[in-house]
Amino acid sequence: MELLKQKIREVGVILSDEVIKLDAILNHAVDPALTTAMGREFARLYRDENVTKILTIESSGIPIAFAAAQELNVPLVFARRKKSLNTETETYCERVPSFTKGIVTDIMVSKEFLDEKDRVVLIDDFIANGDAARGLIRIIRRSGAVLLGLGIAVEKSFQAGGRTIRESGVRVESLVKIASLAGGEIRFE
Amino acid sequence: MELLKQKIREVGVILSDEVIKLDAILNHAVDPALTTAMGREFARLYRDENVTKILTIESSGIPIAFAAAQELNVPLVFARRKKSLNTETETYCERVPSFTKGIVTDIMVSKEFLDEKDRVVLIDDFIANGDAARGLIRIIRRSGAVLLGLGIAVEKSFQAGGRTIRESGVRVESLVKIASLAGGEIRFE
Repeated sequence: MELLKQKIREVGVILSDEVIKLDAILNHAVDPALTTAMGREFARLYRDENVTKILTIESSGIPIAFAAAQELNVPLVFARRKKSLNTETETYCERVPSFTKGIVTDIMVSKEFLDEKDRVVLIDDFIANGDAARGLIRIIRRSGAVLLGLGIAVEKSFQAGGRTIRESGVRVESLVKIASLAGGEIRFE
Repeated sequence: MELLKQKIREVGVILSDEVIKLDAILNHAVDPALTTAMGREFARLYRDENVTKILTIESSGIPIAFAAAQELNVPLVFARRKKSLNTETETYCERVPSFTKGIVTDIMVSKEFLDEKDRVVLIDDFIANGDAARGLIRIIRRSGAVLLGLGIAVEKSFQAGGRTIRESGVRVESLVKIASLAGGEIRFE
């Protein structure tokens, strides 16, 4: 997606050979026109798959996942990162490490919002090592829903997440793949 | 907003005289048509105010805030609840208690996304005691931005948040006001 590449070149802040900060478009501030275009692109990729639900995880995946859900006119479910007072006991829960946060978190989806009648696209902002995605995939499998595939805004293809999930037979669509951040330079695939 | 009242009657789960769970439309699953309508209503209310930015806080406020930002075609900024590796040091940070989570959290907005040229509408899913909203208002004031007002999906008007913020001179627009949950019954204002 050329528009997203341009924006990443404009606003991306390279923090190390492994980390690029995209707070200006994904992780803190959001451009509605760009986000709507990204949602539309995910919708186009999965349009013929009879999607019944979009799944993401709080927080940065929500705007793009919502834009895709709008376009496909299906509900969005966002996995929660831990229990609050308002949370059901009837949940699918998985423990995953977070690459950017450097901590382990529990992610959960209430059983009432995901079941064997669902055909799900999993949308997220980044894929690096793929730990969060794998946790969400386990939740989808446990629910009995069909996983149609992933929609990722930015795949860091120098990390193994996208590749290993593809190798496991899951469709992974990334709008942009970053092959390298070495030397403070963004190289797209 | 009549449509939202209907949905609350349909899906709301009353957990106590003070807590109603709206996971099915706000806090875990999202209906894109309803959310888009809510965003459109916030946009209508603030249309003539030359809004430059929508501010919310992760996570449940993001879909409705995004829908409002789409409609007004201005950027959305979502305050973060704590620091991750990817977070700037140059931030406005405030400590607030959370009514539903029963804990204290630090909320932060990067200085690069909010400044004295901004005219801001603060959007959130719920207002109860108003602690999160007051924290965000302090951040807006510190940035020098103009606070145009609040847009709240569900005001629990039997708790003091909305009232005290209005009394401080801030415009507060709530799409729905719940006057009472006593006896397991939702009474709208």
